[in-house]
Amino acid sequence: MENSAEEMTRVDHRKLKRFVASSFEKLGVPKEDAEIAANVLVQADLRGVDTHGVIRFSPHAWYVKWLTEGSLTARPKLRVISESATTALIDGDRGMGMVIGHRAMEMAIEKAKSAGVAMVGVRNSRHYGMSAYYGMLALPHDMIGIAMTNASRQVVPTFGREARFGTNPMCFAVPADKELPFVLDMATTTAAAGKLELAARLGKSIPGGWALDENAAQTTDPRMAQKARRLLPLCGTRESGSHKGYGLAILVEILCGVLTGTITALNANQDPRGHFFGAIRVDAFRPVAEFKRDMDRLITELRSTPTVVGQERVYVAGEIEFETAQERAEHGIPLHDSVLKGLRQVAEQLGVAYDLE
Amino acid sequence: MENSAEEMTRVDHRKLKRFVASSFEKLGVPKEDAEIAANVLVQADLRGVDTHGVIRFSPHAWYVKWLTEGSLTARPKLRVISESATTALIDGDRGMGMVIGHRAMEMAIEKAKSAGVAMVGVRNSRHYGMSAYYGMLALPHDMIGIAMTNASRQVVPTFGREARFGTNPMCFAVPADKELPFVLDMATTTAAAGKLELAARLGKSIPGGWALDENAAQTTDPRMAQKARRLLPLCGTRESGSHKGYGLAILVEILCGVLTGTITALNANQDPRGHFFGAIRVDAFRPVAEFKRDMDRLITELRSTPTVVGQERVYVAGEIEFETAQERAEHGIPLHDSVLKGLRQVAEQLGVAYDLE
Repeated sequence: MENSAEEMTRVDHRKLKRFVASSFEKLGVPKEDAEIAANVLVQADLRGVDTHGVIRFSPHAWYVKWLTEGSLTARPKLRVISESATTALIDGDRGMGMVIGHRAMEMAIEKAKSAGVAMVGVRNSRHYGMSAYYGMLALPHDMIGIAMTNASRQVVPTFGREARFGTNPMCFAVPADKELPFVLDMATTTAAAGKLELAARLGKSIPGGWALDENAAQTTDPRMAQKARRLLPLCGTRESGSHKGYGLAILVEILCGVLTGTITALNANQDPRGHFFGAIRVDAFRPVAEFKRDMDRLITELRSTPTVVGQERVYVAGEIEFETAQERAEHGIPLHDSVLKGLRQVAEQLGVAYDLE
Repeated sequence: MENSAEEMTRVDHRKLKRFVASSFEKLGVPKEDAEIAANVLVQADLRGVDTHGVIRFSPHAWYVKWLTEGSLTARPKLRVISESATTALIDGDRGMGMVIGHRAMEMAIEKAKSAGVAMVGVRNSRHYGMSAYYGMLALPHDMIGIAMTNASRQVVPTFGREARFGTNPMCFAVPADKELPFVLDMATTTAAAGKLELAARLGKSIPGGWALDENAAQTTDPRMAQKARRLLPLCGTRESGSHKGYGLAILVEILCGVLTGTITALNANQDPRGHFFGAIRVDAFRPVAEFKRDMDRLITELRSTPTVVGQERVYVAGEIEFETAQERAEHGIPLHDSVLKGLRQVAEQLGVAYDLE
């Protein structure tokens, strides 16, 4: 939403999803999988998480490139490595993270239905897009959803000058009653890596505390930061609490990497990823109606907090994204010219009908 | 460890634990419970988490005061509200959080032994001290331990000017092989509330981004901050990522408060607390030996990161606390004169033998 309006075109989300799904199919992805993957990407764009949407859908970037060159498995054979009533470990056969993540989270939800609590780890997957998608799958089941993934090495530990781990995001989604669900989806860096790309595209500078340059000094130039790949952990400096951001990133690496066997922190090869999913049935603890009533009370209490000077509202996690999704579902998703160019190139390359503009 | 040496006396941790346990017994706490509670407090002092140790043990503060006046139940009747193979919800009868937390975490571990994963919520408890104590109980069982608690209202939401929730800490403890375990124990504020007290006692100022004053402006005066009770969430400002710290604090409130029925964010009465404990059996996913080998690799990789100018080491979560505990076990726990004064007063009030100096 920080983009200047004149370079943006509003695109209908249903058309966009059909286009992306058709393109995935042309690339050899089974129809059902193509629809899941398209949905994950377009949900990100709908929710305003532009860094995890179709900005990644061009012949030169990510999924299309990887599928074209064959480094991403179009028809992966998922394999259960270990399983119990409450847990599973899945090998993703280097297939699309969006599809594997969807199926693994569904498995966690199914197990939680009977067991109350369940956790599913994934090894040998690839980039899975927006964490919130998976966490939110738990909401219709009156469960708390958890989703995490490790990511390629581009974050320095507190006091360190070289990257050792990824932006390692975590999502927690919690149902409410009349209020919107609580959906916390956060990179464990101050900013997700895609925010550098967005700033670079728009020619904007980035705040201090986000990233180091190649000499390990703080930089406000997004292109320098992209080149150096030395993001700072959440909070930036030790005094502001970066040891906590660093610690949370390693927690994500432990659950997604060490528990599964795909540790990006030990691997200069950026491709394989590990994920971790969890589902907690609310009524294993309290009646759902009581829980949701109290969620509404908590959310109302937070939203009604008086603001500091210069601010109009206090938000609850996920609120802005829900509002954005509603607006974009109605008026279309604003896509930058450079993103549309990538989509047109995909259409040409694959021979897919293009009806987005 | 920031205290000036001349005001500190080294006290043997075994003597300190015996003194605290004897005092709890005099206050009507059963022997076994008194030993558990004393152990939790002294473990905090051993690990250098001075804010959660015997600094809270004087006739005018916390446990002793509450037990004396009867607002804290010395012999609580714990009640299981709901239970399954993987979950439980316990009512703590307003007993000591240290004792209730210990028993609830043990219950989670027992359940995880057979179920693989388990979670136990607690309502109607009181302040439980240092979160790391509970998470670390999982380590000898080759499990990942989780412990969280809500806390009294003294933190503002991002953009808010009035406190709505607590410092809500979370701990994750993970076993390694030859390396020290990973133990992340963090308040979801930039600094734990006790750090204000420590700074105030020592006449030091606090960094910006920690707290607001009574006019909702940032302050560096710890006494102003203590009076206003308006701490900022982890990361301080929105630009530095405080919406993530705020989100994590609310996640803790949801798991400890909404899931249990003791929501401190809705309650100006600061007494009752909710906790949340979890245990994950490593071998439900991967063989323990493989997991621990990879934990060692990850920890070694992080510790060997080259440092930025002016820093000597990159740490892993928990490392400093383990080193401190080793040193203090050998040479004694350095206690500030004002803390010793409180202990002497407790000894006089209760008629407990005092042999600490």
